[in-house]
Amino acid sequence: MASKSAAGLEKYVRERVPPMLTDQYQFTMAYTYWKSGRHQDEAVFELFFRENPFGGEFSLFSGLTDCLLFLKNFKYTEQDVAFLKSVLPSTMEEGFFRYLLTMDASGVSVCSFPEGSVVFDRVPLMEVNGPLAVVQLLETSLLCLVNYASLVSSNAARLRLAAGPKKRMLEMGLRRAQGPDGGLSASRYSYIGGFDMTSNMLAGQLFGIPVSGTMAHSYITSFSSLEEVRHRTLAPALGEGPALDLVSLSQAWLPRVCSLLQVTHSEVNQGELAAFISYALAFPRNFLVLLDSYSVMRSGVLNFCAVALALCQLHYQPIGVRLDSGDLCGQSVELRQIFLSCSSRFQVAELQSLLIVGSNNISEKSLLEMNGRENEIDVVGVGTHLVTCPLQPSLGCVYKLVQVNGAPRMKLTEDSGKSTLPGRKAVYRLYSQDGHAFLDLLSLREEPVPAEGIAVQCRVLGGWEEETVTAARVERIHQQCFTQGQISQTLPSTADIRTRVQAALSTLHPGQRRLQQPERYKVAVSEKLYCLLRDLKNSLKN
Amino acid sequence: MASKSAAGLEKYVRERVPPMLTDQYQFTMAYTYWKSGRHQDEAVFELFFRENPFGGEFSLFSGLTDCLLFLKNFKYTEQDVAFLKSVLPSTMEEGFFRYLLTMDASGVSVCSFPEGSVVFDRVPLMEVNGPLAVVQLLETSLLCLVNYASLVSSNAARLRLAAGPKKRMLEMGLRRAQGPDGGLSASRYSYIGGFDMTSNMLAGQLFGIPVSGTMAHSYITSFSSLEEVRHRTLAPALGEGPALDLVSLSQAWLPRVCSLLQVTHSEVNQGELAAFISYALAFPRNFLVLLDSYSVMRSGVLNFCAVALALCQLHYQPIGVRLDSGDLCGQSVELRQIFLSCSSRFQVAELQSLLIVGSNNISEKSLLEMNGRENEIDVVGVGTHLVTCPLQPSLGCVYKLVQVNGAPRMKLTEDSGKSTLPGRKAVYRLYSQDGHAFLDLLSLREEPVPAEGIAVQCRVLGGWEEETVTAARVERIHQQCFTQGQISQTLPSTADIRTRVQAALSTLHPGQRRLQQPERYKVAVSEKLYCLLRDLKNSLKN
Repeated sequence: MASKSAAGLEKYVRERVPPMLTDQYQFTMAYTYWKSGRHQDEAVFELFFRENPFGGEFSLFSGLTDCLLFLKNFKYTEQDVAFLKSVLPSTMEEGFFRYLLTMDASGVSVCSFPEGSVVFDRVPLMEVNGPLAVVQLLETSLLCLVNYASLVSSNAARLRLAAGPKKRMLEMGLRRAQGPDGGLSASRYSYIGGFDMTSNMLAGQLFGIPVSGTMAHSYITSFSSLEEVRHRTLAPALGEGPALDLVSLSQAWLPRVCSLLQVTHSEVNQGELAAFISYALAFPRNFLVLLDSYSVMRSGVLNFCAVALALCQLHYQPIGVRLDSGDLCGQSVELRQIFLSCSSRFQVAELQSLLIVGSNNISEKSLLEMNGRENEIDVVGVGTHLVTCPLQPSLGCVYKLVQVNGAPRMKLTEDSGKSTLPGRKAVYRLYSQDGHAFLDLLSLREEPVPAEGIAVQCRVLGGWEEETVTAARVERIHQQCFTQGQISQTLPSTADIRTRVQAALSTLHPGQRRLQQPERYKVAVSEKLYCLLRDLKNSLKN
Repeated sequence: MASKSAAGLEKYVRERVPPMLTDQYQFTMAYTYWKSGRHQDEAVFELFFRENPFGGEFSLFSGLTDCLLFLKNFKYTEQDVAFLKSVLPSTMEEGFFRYLLTMDASGVSVCSFPEGSVVFDRVPLMEVNGPLAVVQLLETSLLCLVNYASLVSSNAARLRLAAGPKKRMLEMGLRRAQGPDGGLSASRYSYIGGFDMTSNMLAGQLFGIPVSGTMAHSYITSFSSLEEVRHRTLAPALGEGPALDLVSLSQAWLPRVCSLLQVTHSEVNQGELAAFISYALAFPRNFLVLLDSYSVMRSGVLNFCAVALALCQLHYQPIGVRLDSGDLCGQSVELRQIFLSCSSRFQVAELQSLLIVGSNNISEKSLLEMNGRENEIDVVGVGTHLVTCPLQPSLGCVYKLVQVNGAPRMKLTEDSGKSTLPGRKAVYRLYSQDGHAFLDLLSLREEPVPAEGIAVQCRVLGGWEEETVTAARVERIHQQCFTQGQISQTLPSTADIRTRVQAALSTLHPGQRRLQQPERYKVAVSEKLYCLLRDLKNSLKN
């Protein structure tokens, strides 16, 4: 974390994710394990999702850092246990509550994809093993930490793909997120997924994410006349002369701009002009204003140009404008032309490099449309469609038992899509000659690593069709990250994870990275795992 | 709060909602106000939404308690200000940062709907007044606290209406919410909206919400044979005899149940039987199990009946079953018949009153369908469709300036739906003779209260058509709840707010409470407010 020590992040997780943040049934199950003497049985759970989100063919895996910090601090307090006693069935024995007080994650180990990996449906993201009662109790908290983090970072990655690599992207969804921490998670994982900055100050403070922002409509409408500009003078940028009256300078430019753009001077809102001048006086080097409080083309842009030209006179470089309503693409093109004709007419080069920021209900769909149209938007601000993930508002990771005391386990419902893959697995990613990943292969732990350049037989998940694949490169994916109660790898910073995401996305075949109707990425099991699955299915059915 | 002192709730809000949880632009705006000497100007903001969520005709207002606690604790730390200095433009003057360090909400007052009120689009939910820079800085945090709280409590209220009053409703969405606090907010405000209980233990601990839950599939699949039941005996319920071997008792019942239901004994899964028996041994008075780990009708129900009958032999009352896949209605009817025929065949009355719990992707739509079909479901568990509000994942409350130093303000964009209503308002709710609310009337503060039984002229929002209304009862809605830095009303408990919600919903006309194609609820402005709006619009346009 750039601006936050690891200890600070640990405190953050400890405060927000106490072990009581879990479902009640974890305690009734743990009690039953304890009561039947099975609580120390060696259990293995896998955390995975069954379907890639948003109709895509990939997802990002996020939230691991918080999971590890949660595990490290996993410990019930006396108060917690007193509360549990007060709400759980009164028939429960005292010994269990004493057991809870001694419980921690010292018997737990985790191996997992690195945080920020590109991941696929039905491939275990994390494997958690340890005493049955303990690893059962971890379920809800781990799911809660991974589900939304992965969902929103995946959404951010898609929005980034939709916008193309050139636009800068600002997350601004705090007010629309699921409460305070929902907003904080949104900012953090949007940045990881590929956004450049956030409006959320606390996210900047806690996670070192670049923060950005300028003004709201209320700022503009709070001004009604130029008399409200109480301090009017500004010194030139390089201190090369006396301070000048920015109001007079702007007022002098306004009729010239009006004449160039053929707008009647009286149409221009004076309160807006006062707001822009005040902002320029406060932030002469960061002059970027909101144009649409009254009328973009009949007021906002004229006031902006007048104040920007005044700033240029004092050798400041104005930054740009924000559009927050209407046809963003069309307006941006018109604005660019206005800026260029002002620049040429008044011989002011600074107006050639202004930024145009677009916001207002921007979605994946509108970004794709934007990309297909002529536009001059340099920066997009995305709020609601980023943080609430309306195309699919939850990821649906599950946490399933695959082995107890060395014996494989599976859930076999009548809904075959909800069946699980038994046994403890190794996960390999297979790459083709051109460097693209083309298959994730799950095999049993004890099987040898698939050799590079040698054909391997496997069964593709879903239809179980046989397939023979040859990988130019084979990557063993899961890394041991938590060992017997301790975090056993260096925690990457938020910025490190963000970098990893972009690298990981580049290993995907473009057809699989496509947002709409992507090509299928195959996940397969080894022949041995397939046989285990078939045999166990048959034995459970009989 | 039943189980949590007011001080505990205050700590909770302080930790999660520091004043840094806001958008960067609030600081740049505040600086500009300060720089232009306007920061102490007396400003009035209103918080409202523009459209009722989910295609309905009402919403609930939630989140006020946290807003008030946030305001009470609103104070930047030295660390906060040091961070702000490090990320905000370096041209900002030191005096502003000193001002931030002295800032608190002692100049702020709030009047508002009571929390848990039924509210409508475009009616101010809260009015916040105080020094311009301070009330500006509050914007994002207040929106963040109100938006999701109101959205999810409204969603819960709709789901409750869809399910009908008889079903008990369990919120179980923690793992699918927007991270840890998203899940906590979901549990808290779902309860307020009309749910009966939550699976979220921390929500129980912090807010006194009843908690509930039994077991997951992993619990069932962790058992593979009866040998895993290590302690087998259970004493009778009233201690009236020796402990008996529950495994043997259940095993003795199983063939009789199989024969009654015409299922081959060998189809019944032994691991599942072991899991059920272990649960019965742990929770003989709370025996409620998940039926669909293998096959509901060829395994789950047989194992359940066998263990339930064994428990009945020992004079325990089994509680029921949970279905988590397939056709919930159809299965519930079949199960009820099985329970009744077991009860009659084996002469065990206890099987007549079993609970059937249904879960698995339950939504408003599926609850409405459930209501229209024969079913025997007593309790529904709702997760994803409750906490993520997929029909509309954000409420879209806004916070708009309506007055500065006594002068009305408005935003007048080219998108007329985004224009605001100027001036400081009084809000009245008008009731008809039969006790139903029929109109919310906004007038200027200085206007007299509309008299009961006397015709009042007003303009309906939207088309501005003139209308004359006569109210049998007029309620002045906004209450002063924060006065010059102090909370000026007693904070209601979570349970109190929940009770208020149900009372408020009952004042709605059934046609307006309807979930689909509801009748319109009218919101109107007084003639005076309408004139102000028209005049201000004209003056801003020129």
